[in-house]
Amino acid sequence: MYKIAIVGYGNLGRGVEKALEKNADMSLVGIFTRRHPETVETLYGNVYKMEQLLDLKEAIDVCILCGGSATDLPEQTPDITKHFNTVDSFDTHALIPAHFDKVNQVAEESGHVSIISVGWDPGLFSLNRVLAEAILPEGKTITFWGKGVSQGHSDAIRRIDGVQDGIQYTIPNETAMTSFKKGEVDSLSTREKHTRECFVVLDKEANREKVTEEITSMPNYFDEYDTTVHFVTQEILDNEHKQKMPHGGRVIRVGQTSEINKEVIDFSLELDSNPEFTASVLVAYSRACIRLFKEGQSGARTVFDIAPKYLINKENSLLRSDML
Amino acid sequence: MYKIAIVGYGNLGRGVEKALEKNADMSLVGIFTRRHPETVETLYGNVYKMEQLLDLKEAIDVCILCGGSATDLPEQTPDITKHFNTVDSFDTHALIPAHFDKVNQVAEESGHVSIISVGWDPGLFSLNRVLAEAILPEGKTITFWGKGVSQGHSDAIRRIDGVQDGIQYTIPNETAMTSFKKGEVDSLSTREKHTRECFVVLDKEANREKVTEEITSMPNYFDEYDTTVHFVTQEILDNEHKQKMPHGGRVIRVGQTSEINKEVIDFSLELDSNPEFTASVLVAYSRACIRLFKEGQSGARTVFDIAPKYLINKENSLLRSDML
Repeated sequence: MYKIAIVGYGNLGRGVEKALEKNADMSLVGIFTRRHPETVETLYGNVYKMEQLLDLKEAIDVCILCGGSATDLPEQTPDITKHFNTVDSFDTHALIPAHFDKVNQVAEESGHVSIISVGWDPGLFSLNRVLAEAILPEGKTITFWGKGVSQGHSDAIRRIDGVQDGIQYTIPNETAMTSFKKGEVDSLSTREKHTRECFVVLDKEANREKVTEEITSMPNYFDEYDTTVHFVTQEILDNEHKQKMPHGGRVIRVGQTSEINKEVIDFSLELDSNPEFTASVLVAYSRACIRLFKEGQSGARTVFDIAPKYLINKENSLLRSDML
Repeated sequence: MYKIAIVGYGNLGRGVEKALEKNADMSLVGIFTRRHPETVETLYGNVYKMEQLLDLKEAIDVCILCGGSATDLPEQTPDITKHFNTVDSFDTHALIPAHFDKVNQVAEESGHVSIISVGWDPGLFSLNRVLAEAILPEGKTITFWGKGVSQGHSDAIRRIDGVQDGIQYTIPNETAMTSFKKGEVDSLSTREKHTRECFVVLDKEANREKVTEEITSMPNYFDEYDTTVHFVTQEILDNEHKQKMPHGGRVIRVGQTSEINKEVIDFSLELDSNPEFTASVLVAYSRACIRLFKEGQSGARTVFDIAPKYLINKENSLLRSDML
């Protein structure tokens, strides 16, 4: 059995706890949190204070780091990799190279393996971008996201004066997707790729037109998109838009193998729960992390460095006979 | 530059020749054939007799084996792996384990790397089956093929008395696919998954009803499917059905991450040219083959053993900054 620690217990940590139940070769050692353990309600895992992590060093094969990319992971991943194998979902694209270098140095020095930026984007989508470009070097790749909630855009709406609550969906443009796959266009503008749909609860005194105008003209977030704003009650928002966290997207590459022949590679995800799916990807890569460590490897890795066989709980000979 | 030899020159070999032109880090050493070299018309590659392969040993990094799985590859892959790194597209599913073991022994003894069963199925579809099952251990995977020509079924039609020529398309059932993705069904019968469509040219004296009956009731090939038969002229068959070799398919996994949440992973291909695409996959894996050999590895490998970074002509640090 591979012995797993969950570090940080929000939606993602809870997703990892659920995912571990579905993997027969893995067991949960405990959940480590900065909160008071007695205030944390888990599904089944034991809760420890973050400071207790080192005490359980011998009992843990890998720590799955479930903190956020803004402030938690930049510090936690290097810190914890000094003592443990780690997997994180660091997703601030522009800062990935620096994060990798920092974690790699610690991992090499301490003899651990750390797989960073695991999830679906970065993660499975990145893997498919590389696979598709390797096979079709002459071509174009486009990534679509959604339909799903964007936390950043939802936060932006909620900061507007007069807005009590709100949620924003990113919606891929199916028509644009189809034209791209058919080879009718080889690039798409920001506006053509996605639309944005907002569900907003107003404060009593607020003005609909003014709020709509503020949302749709907001720089960086909305001004480059076609945005629809719906006004709803708090009850509707809570019941119809806050129960699940669906998301998804697709990576499409269209490439020419000769003058007359075009090939399309299309990888897509439709997720009822973004955090539970991301957690499931983290768990599969934590298996790889332990296996690489047991082979004597050390250093930082990404999804690009991991062969598929390391991810699955199945013997190599069975993979060849049953799944090839 | 990686130096490539093409062994065997049918549709697949010609596809490799085209694919090499699109890969800036690869050059074609030559095409090796059992035919008389002067009778073989290539796009640009030099043609040699098969017996000359060993004479060019020092000039070749990897041989891409483009023969058939029925009689060529079971002998060629072990034979040639004695002296070279090799990549093949061996696709007789039931015989893959035996082929792997035989090639692995030769590769280990001679210190070469051989990647077998490369293409899209086996190949990319296999990779996606493993990836999807690793991430969603509780779930179901279904593979659909088509729309595309099945050579085996086309041959079966042509063997019928009264048939002058013919072609068979395998067509996936879109409605069944959608129900599966929605989680409405968790398995599909053979008849539900695909239909078959035949375009047949009759001999002058032949009877339409009799030929239709013979096709639709043919055991193993057609009796378990809903099959449509169209009678056409040789001219129509040649012009509308023999110019291209389109194919495709998809691997879909639907899995639960918790009682209420279902996730869908969907990998699909839409190919204008089955052989050119398969060739492009072979070329990407031939890059991996050389790189593994240069790392000092030896033995047989499959797509399950290859990390994505080995497939692409791009530095690891650029992969992380640009594609993660």
